[in-house]
Amino acid sequence: MIEQVIEQWHAYLKGQLPDGLDALLDDEVVFYSPIVYTPQRGKAITTMYLQAAGQTLPGESASSGVPGETPTGGFRYTKAVMAGDTAVLEFETTVEGKYVNGVDIIRCNDQGRIVEFRVMIRPLQAVNLVHRQMAATLEAMKPSG
Amino acid sequence: MIEQVIEQWHAYLKGQLPDGLDALLDDEVVFYSPIVYTPQRGKAITTMYLQAAGQTLPGESASSGVPGETPTGGFRYTKAVMAGDTAVLEFETTVEGKYVNGVDIIRCNDQGRIVEFRVMIRPLQAVNLVHRQMAATLEAMKPSG
Repeated sequence: MIEQVIEQWHAYLKGQLPDGLDALLDDEVVFYSPIVYTPQRGKAITTMYLQAAGQTLPGESASSGVPGETPTGGFRYTKAVMAGDTAVLEFETTVEGKYVNGVDIIRCNDQGRIVEFRVMIRPLQAVNLVHRQMAATLEAMKPSG
Repeated sequence: MIEQVIEQWHAYLKGQLPDGLDALLDDEVVFYSPIVYTPQRGKAITTMYLQAAGQTLPGESASSGVPGETPTGGFRYTKAVMAGDTAVLEFETTVEGKYVNGVDIIRCNDQGRIVEFRVMIRPLQAVNLVHRQMAATLEAMKPSG
């Protein structure tokens, strides 16, 4: 089951999943941030975090196209380890010229929906960089007014 | 093959692997620290890092027994995902009262020796804490004189 979920996750990253994250995430999904201790519960906030991460760590879909932005090194998955209901996808990318190495730990239920999405990154410099960038991105995503 | 390597790894953590890390690590093993960018190459330096990590994140073997030290929450593995030559072991522990969540990513060769050992932790507070502690532990491990 997890293999099909990961296929859908890759399709989502390529912009090829018509219903996007809504089709992929369980209502009760929990997101565990690389930065924040508190688990983020529910589809709405997990969607927001994953979209913010997609902007911070430009993915297969990515290249933000924002004028003046330095192009970043391509996000790529370097390992995929799957067993039972869980997948671990290791990735590498470059943000502001700094190397970022991380894992997405993804667990699904019997319905093929993601119930847990956990991210960790290394080294320290990357954690601090992503912290700053994610904070700025989440701030910019807030509805104004 | 990776399943047997992980069995040995657990035995090592329990102090039940007679030849210790020497039997488990390949001569060309590379350690990727959660803190430091530069890969640490070779059995000697990887052994030093894993021993320092064992002191910083007290393991199944652990409880340092150092007088005056506050007992830390028990180190425990919370997920094991294995496929092919790779295992991902997720863990939780408590250091100085702070929650630490991490992964050991372990890859072995056909001879059942570990050739890659990669660690990542979350959240940010834990990364900073482990950074401080590992630096102090590695400093203390240096031969004096």
